[in-house]
Amino acid sequence: MAKKHNIPVETIKRTITYIRYLEREKQKGVKIISSRDITSLLNIPPAQFRKDLSFFGEFGKRGVGYNVDILIETLKQLLGLDRKVKAIVVGAGRLGTALVQYPGFLEINVEIIGAFDNDSKKIGQSIKGIDIYDIKNIKKFIIKNNVKIALLCVPSDSAQIVANILIEAGIKSILNFAPVVLILPEGINIANVDMASEIGSIIYRMKETVQ
Amino acid sequence: MAKKHNIPVETIKRTITYIRYLEREKQKGVKIISSRDITSLLNIPPAQFRKDLSFFGEFGKRGVGYNVDILIETLKQLLGLDRKVKAIVVGAGRLGTALVQYPGFLEINVEIIGAFDNDSKKIGQSIKGIDIYDIKNIKKFIIKNNVKIALLCVPSDSAQIVANILIEAGIKSILNFAPVVLILPEGINIANVDMASEIGSIIYRMKETVQ
Repeated sequence: MAKKHNIPVETIKRTITYIRYLEREKQKGVKIISSRDITSLLNIPPAQFRKDLSFFGEFGKRGVGYNVDILIETLKQLLGLDRKVKAIVVGAGRLGTALVQYPGFLEINVEIIGAFDNDSKKIGQSIKGIDIYDIKNIKKFIIKNNVKIALLCVPSDSAQIVANILIEAGIKSILNFAPVVLILPEGINIANVDMASEIGSIIYRMKETVQ
Repeated sequence: MAKKHNIPVETIKRTITYIRYLEREKQKGVKIISSRDITSLLNIPPAQFRKDLSFFGEFGKRGVGYNVDILIETLKQLLGLDRKVKAIVVGAGRLGTALVQYPGFLEINVEIIGAFDNDSKKIGQSIKGIDIYDIKNIKKFIIKNNVKIALLCVPSDSAQIVANILIEAGIKSILNFAPVVLILPEGINIANVDMASEIGSIIYRMKETVQ
């Protein structure tokens, strides 16, 4: 169980997909699962699945299948997803609002505990039990609740300013949805999700395919 | 202007970010822009910007800056984003609903012309002028409107079945938000966006940083 470092990011992402799938099977009452079950539903080549798991050590016995509970717990522990992680959504626009309610986060123990905006019409409202707070109070909230993760859904031209405030308050990881590249100090983790870039790049590929 | 092939996907994605930024500057009335202006707001190293543009050919004159209109139009043309592209959202849940209204798509000429769901409470409603149709009629709609792009926001366990229907009807590109790997015939373009995987992978990196 020692091969933990230098795991490719694509392996990490697929492993999270495995965990989410296993969680859903567990809900259905499944106790033991074969790698064939996992790979056939997720459309992952079996060799890919075995290779991904091998980064984390040895699991299950050949021909017996995996104990679903143990596999979920072990994978979560190895990825640091075994304890609940608190996160906030910054910017309660359409995307921010959808993210507050996104069910996939809870499957990996990420709990959204608050949303923030500067629009007085939104402040004080709540989305499925999650309150929208005044962005002016975000620093206090982050410190008080020891939040380490922020989902940044503010407009492009305020993304860097808001990111600076988040980091000052103690945020260590940002999932950025604004189409700008953020300058961040060392030690801060960032992932960028830009839906327009994703769709634009498939349109470009489509154009190349047609020609 | 001939170096069009084998452009790295990251260059494509950044170029789309440039286009979106330029569109916003154009709205503000900006006619001429320097590469310094572009790179400083987007936090892109100037060398990166020049390298990205070099994949597409020669632009602007040193010291004079770029004509905003011409730069936008040329980049869009090179990426196949100069004509309006019609897209549909499949699955009008929270994420699907947010995507229907996502302003970044229009900046790159992607127009969402309809949303589809199988929930009778949603069918017949509309989101900001975009109608939600019965998924039973999706094939007819795709053919009639010559839609080539679908944003797939249905639950994991129906994603593959729905994808098959989309492709049968003529869809060539899918932006998949379901946390499954879709099996697709050759010539179909796919990009996967899984928010939980993105956030899970930064939590893993955060854990590694702390230890």
